[in-house]
Parts: sequence; C-alpha cells; structure tokens
Amino acid sequence: MAEKTWVRMVTAQTPTNIAVIKYWGKRDETLILPVNDSISVTLDPAHLCTTTTVAVSPSFDQDRMWLNGKEISLSGGRYQNCLREIRARACEVEDKEKGIKIAKKDWEKLHLHVASYNNFPTAAGLASSAAGFACLVFALAKLMNAKEDNSELSAIARQGSGSACRSLFGGFVKWIMGKAEDGSDSLAVQLVDEKHWDELVIIIAVVSSRQKETSSTTGMRDSVETSLLLQHRAKEVVPKRIKQMEEAIKNRDFGSFAQLSCADSNQFHAVCLDTCPPIFYMNGTSHRIISCVEKWNCSEGTPQVAYTFDAGPNAVLIAHNRKAATQLMQKLLFCFPPTSDAHLNSYVIGDKSILKDAGIEDIKDVEALPPPPETKDVQRCKGDVSYFICTKPGRGPALLSDESQALLHPETGLPK
Amino acid sequence: MAEKTWVRMVTAQTPTNIAVIKYWGKRDETLILPVNDSISVTLDPAHLCTTTTVAVSPSFDQDRMWLNGKEISLSGGRYQNCLREIRARACEVEDKEKGIKIAKKDWEKLHLHVASYNNFPTAAGLASSAAGFACLVFALAKLMNAKEDNSELSAIARQGSGSACRSLFGGFVKWIMGKAEDGSDSLAVQLVDEKHWDELVIIIAVVSSRQKETSSTTGMRDSVETSLLLQHRAKEVVPKRIKQMEEAIKNRDFGSFAQLSCADSNQFHAVCLDTCPPIFYMNGTSHRIISCVEKWNCSEGTPQVAYTFDAGPNAVLIAHNRKAATQLMQKLLFCFPPTSDAHLNSYVIGDKSILKDAGIEDIKDVEALPPPPETKDVQRCKGDVSYFICTKPGRGPALLSDESQALLHPETGLPK
Repeated sequence: MAEKTWVRMVTAQTPTNIAVIKYWGKRDETLILPVNDSISVTLDPAHLCTTTTVAVSPSFDQDRMWLNGKEISLSGGRYQNCLREIRARACEVEDKEKGIKIAKKDWEKLHLHVASYNNFPTAAGLASSAAGFACLVFALAKLMNAKEDNSELSAIARQGSGSACRSLFGGFVKWIMGKAEDGSDSLAVQLVDEKHWDELVIIIAVVSSRQKETSSTTGMRDSVETSLLLQHRAKEVVPKRIKQMEEAIKNRDFGSFAQLSCADSNQFHAVCLDTCPPIFYMNGTSHRIISCVEKWNCSEGTPQVAYTFDAGPNAVLIAHNRKAATQLMQKLLFCFPPTSDAHLNSYVIGDKSILKDAGIEDIKDVEALPPPPETKDVQRCKGDVSYFICTKPGRGPALLSDESQALLHPETGLPK
Repeated sequence: MAEKTWVRMVTAQTPTNIAVIKYWGKRDETLILPVNDSISVTLDPAHLCTTTTVAVSPSFDQDRMWLNGKEISLSGGRYQNCLREIRARACEVEDKEKGIKIAKKDWEKLHLHVASYNNFPTAAGLASSAAGFACLVFALAKLMNAKEDNSELSAIARQGSGSACRSLFGGFVKWIMGKAEDGSDSLAVQLVDEKHWDELVIIIAVVSSRQKETSSTTGMRDSVETSLLLQHRAKEVVPKRIKQMEEAIKNRDFGSFAQLSCADSNQFHAVCLDTCPPIFYMNGTSHRIISCVEKWNCSEGTPQVAYTFDAGPNAVLIAHNRKAATQLMQKLLFCFPPTSDAHLNSYVIGDKSILKDAGIEDIKDVEALPPPPETKDVQRCKGDVSYFICTKPGRGPALLSDESQALLHPETGLPK
C-alpha cells in the first residue's frame, strides 16, 4: 500500500507561435495533415506561454485535466490521440531516491493528471491550443522518459492541434507537410533559433470584437470543401513562398520577410472570404491597423513592420528593430488610445521598455502624441483595441525544475 | 449666318447595371479589355439611370460637357476615345423640317454639347460611370445616325468604362471578353430581356462609410500586378461559372443563381484582399448584411436572397420574389433601423410598395419589428446604412422624345 502513495511530476513551459506563412486546410482531418508547409515565429514565453504540470501516480484512478484551474474533459479525440501516441513511446523510469520504478508496460495502466495554465487570456485568440498541446506532449514525454527528439514529438503534438507542432522549437520553425499517409513525416523543424534574428520586436494588438468567430477547425474544413482558390494557393503559391521565406529568414532580409508575411496573411484571409459561406476573421479595426502599417511602410520606402493575422481580428506586428517598434507603438497609441478609464499599465503589457523608449509614461503622453504624418485625417478610435502585448521571438519548450512552479500538489497530484 | 443657328439634340436614358459574375482585371488598360467574361443584371432606370442630352450645332466652338449641372472636362482619354470612335461611325443626317443637313464628313468639324444627369447620388458607388458612358455613346449614336447595333455600340462604351458596355441592354447581359487585339470582339450581348425573370426584386443598401475607397481602375490594376489568385480565378474559375450562370438565368433557377452570385462576389473581394497592398471594399456593415442573408438562406434550406458587392461597401440584394423581398425588408429594417431623426420616406426609396407589403408605414412599425428568428443576439445598428433603394431588373437604353426632358436648351444648346 505504501508504495502506491508516490507521485511523479514534471512541469514544462512551452511558447505559442504565430505563422508567417499560414497553415489553412487539412488533407486528413484525423491525423491533422496540412495541405501545405507553414513557417512560424515562436513568441517569447515570458509573455505568451503555457505552463503544464503532468503527474503520474498509482493512486490516480482516471486521467484528469485542469485548464486554467477548471477541470475539463480529456475524452475528446485530440487529447486521446496525443495520450495514446505518447504512451506508446513511454520508457522505463526509475527514481531510486523516491523509490519509484515504472516499467515500460506499466504506463498502459497508470493514470495521469494534467494541469495547464496560460499566462495570457485563452479567449483572446492567441493560439492557446498550440502552446497547450505542445506543452502537454513535451511534458508527458519527459515524464515518461520518451527518447524522441522535439521533431518527433512535434508529430504527436500536431495530432492535438496542427499549429502545436511548431511550438516545439524556438526561433523560426517550419512545419513540413510531409507525404506519408500515416503522417509520420508531417513534423516541425527549426529553421533558426531565437538568437539568429534578435533585433525583431513583436507587438500584438488584441482587438475588441463584437462577434464570435468561426473556429479555425470548422473554417478550415469549409474552406477545403468550398473555396476554389485554396488548392491553387496550397499547390502553386505556398511552395514558392516557403522557399523565399526561408531565404529571407536566413539572410535577415526584413524587406522580403515583411512582404511575404503580409501577402501570405492577406491571402489566407482571401481564401476565408472565398469560402461558402464566407468567413470574416478581420474586422474594421484589423483593416485600420493594416492601413496604418501599409501607409507607413510605403512612406518609408522600405518595410518597417510586417503584419499577420490568424483566425481572429488580432494583429501581430513584427517590427524590424527597436527603433521601428518604438515608432510603431507611438502610431498605434495615437490611432488606438486607451479608453480614458483604462490604465496605461494594463493597456500595454509584456515588455514595457518599448513604452519607455517611446516617451510614454502616462495617459497625458498618449494624448500629446502627434498624428502619424503619412496618414491623413486619421481618426482616433478609443476602445477598438483591448490591449497591446510587447514581446519578441523566443525560445522553445523548457522544463521547470523548481517544484514551486508546479501546478499540481507534489503529494496529492491535485491542483494546488 | 441664319443657317448657323440650328441645334440638333437627342436625349436618352440608360440604366446602370450590377455584375453577378464580376469583371476585375484588364488585359489591356487603354482599350479596356477584361481578363474574363462577366454577367450583369440591368437595374430599372426608373430608380437608377443616367439621362443624357447630346447636341450638335455649327455655333458650338468646342466640345463641352456638364455632369449633374457642373461643367467637367472632356479632355480625358476615356471621353476622347468614345468621341473619336463614335464620330468615325457618324452618318449623314437630314431634318428637312428644321432645315438641317449634316454630311458624313461634317461631323469631324462639328462640336458637341453633352449634359448628363444621374437620378441617384454619384458618390454612392452605384456604377454611375457605367450608365454615364453607355448613355453618352447611345445618345451620340442616335444624334449622328450611326447604323451600329447596341452590341457594336457597347464596344465603344467599353472604352469609356468597362462595365458601361453592359448597360446597352436590359435584363441579363454578358460582356464577352473577346480575343481580338484591337478589342473589336469585346462587347456585350443580351442573354434574356427584363421580362424573362420578372419576379426578382432588388434591394440596394447604401452603406455609410468612413473611408474613401480605392478607385476600381487603380484597384484593378494593382490586383492584376500583385494578386497571385487573380489569373487562376480568371482562367480556371470564371469560365465555368459563366456557363453555370447562363444556365441558371435561362432556367430561372434561383438556387444556383444565388449560390453563384454570392460566391463570385466573395471571390472578387478575396482577390482584392490578395492584392498588395490589400484592398478592402466591404466594411463591417457589409459583413453583417452578408451574415444576415447567409443565416436566413441557410435556415430556409433554399436561397431566398442573393447578395453582390461592387467596389464599395454597398450591398445589392436580389430577392427570389416579392414575398422574399418583403421578408428581407423587414429583416434589414430590424437590423439597420433609420436614425431617429431620419424620415422613413427618405430611408427607403424607389419602389415603396415593398415597404407597404412589409406592413411598415411609419417609424413605429420599424421599432415594433420582431428580430429575425434565425439570427441570435442580433444588434440593431442605427446609422450603418444611409438608405435603401427598392428596384427590379429593368430595360436597356431608351430615347426620350419629349423635348421637355432634354437637359440642354433647344436653341442655345446650353444647360437649361
């Protein structure tokens, strides 16, 4: 009986990512195999990440999961696929100190507890499922002493949420669509790590929205079934763009990087619009942010900022460097000032040093901002943006060895 | 001297039209030759038309034109091309009663006065240039006794504004893109006249807009130069759709008609979004109108209404029949009620009998409308629509023989 009381735990942190060459459309719904390659940038986990603690104990009588403190069901096919695949790769674990010994075959019978927490609002449309599934698979692999490398793990995370496979690495990551019917070669590889292009600065505008968006799973399926442009994009346009984007990243060629990112984001939304019924992820605020960036890039003669939008109205803006990011912040705050009651402190979050560089310390500094010279008759739209997050490209998954960061109690295996 | 005082005048009225398979992209900028065929429905000139009076007199010392009462320049290439082409087709004219005799060769030296008037706001984005150039060419052809039929005239009007060629006929009209380098076979033909499918009812929502839109000339050029989807659309998608649309119109198959119209409108806007920099013609109000129609069509199981949007946010809604139009009017007025200060009388214009059928006589009836059952949590957006125009498919160009309708003075040839 006494030996049943042990709990083995692992806690990991995994970043979210944003695609700069988009994934839109599956060729296999169950295995989650895409119709084209995609490329993403991993976001700094300091500002956007999932922390997951996974635990195993002979005292657990079922698999259970808590997301942001609330118990959720693990019965869905996507969770089941990830759990099955990772269990199949479990190896022997021995912790002499704690008197734990788990044989390879034991994993089939042992139950798991999972607690996951996002350091950003789940509902904000910031790819929380990507970070979530990547973290689940990564943490379980460590718990189970699986020998697979991160690329191999990415093919498992992919079965939870397609874009999750790209969160297994930092820096810039390519999801190779693969050819195999079983999906074994549809996995992520790192193109360059986060140090390769470390002058980039990322500002995310979380845009207020009146409408509930179409889920990306449903939207993608509708696009594959009805859009007459999707296959042309997947077969003719994206393969060339992938090569060009890899070159741009390798050479830190911001002009090409921005041109490709913006064009690909727009084309993804064009395919959504070509879907029946049409899907509108961007709203008027998204359009105004694009217009603001396009006018500035045009007036400078060379791109200062790239924009990209996922399945929602939020803008992810990638600035060439700190100077461009500072200017961008000023323009954004001019166009989208906080509502008078909001505190600037909660309106610009993440790396607040950009705000300081922009000379903005309080709401009066925002009010005193000059209008961007390149945009005529610009309207100041209070309330259209909920908040901004300042961040940068970041590292891949990491283990958190400090037990105080675990989300499960080391003795009960229940949420702290 | 006395013989120099005569003025010969012709007044014509020409409808506007709305494409249901869109024209977007030129293969020749000067001749205005499109990259694909297009199909349009002609709108009833009672509600949307241009009236043009053209006059010739030996007393005129230059070509002059007045649009909506204001003199405008005729020096632009598009006007010059139309004037040159139509003068080349001028024939002898004799009016013994008035003592007028114009030899074929005289037309080269004689100057023209043109006055044109739209019975709808020019700035509302309702294809005023289509009706305008069609009317100019049609009226001049009659003035000059040109022998060309309306298809041949359409190839001239096309050189003023591409879509103008489709305003030379009533009912449903196809603009054949043609193959000839000189554009001689790029012209419009009537598919069916306005009586063929006379149960259709058209409601136009003139949508309020904060932004100045990209002109269709500029937008089209940018799309041809930068969109990687445009050529695929033009070469692979549209040719099939044209055939399907011709069948649908011939068979009065509203289900197919609506499906094709909506899909093609959305695809045109998808190509605009795929343009660099992206073009947004539709705004949030346009999106809400689409959503309202899609939800209703879906709940009915079979389409009740088709929507189509040109290079602006205005919705052109084509209802299957009067019953569907009445229900549509109720839904639209529920979602987009007039601002309290606006009079219902100026908020719904054109064929007001639809309003009567919908049981709406004053603003209180609008306020009492029930929410559309198929749309949950619908917000009532006052002020998002400027006004509605109720109309139907209509006839082609017509001569107005009643001299009181002329816009030029019969003796001076100057605007009345």
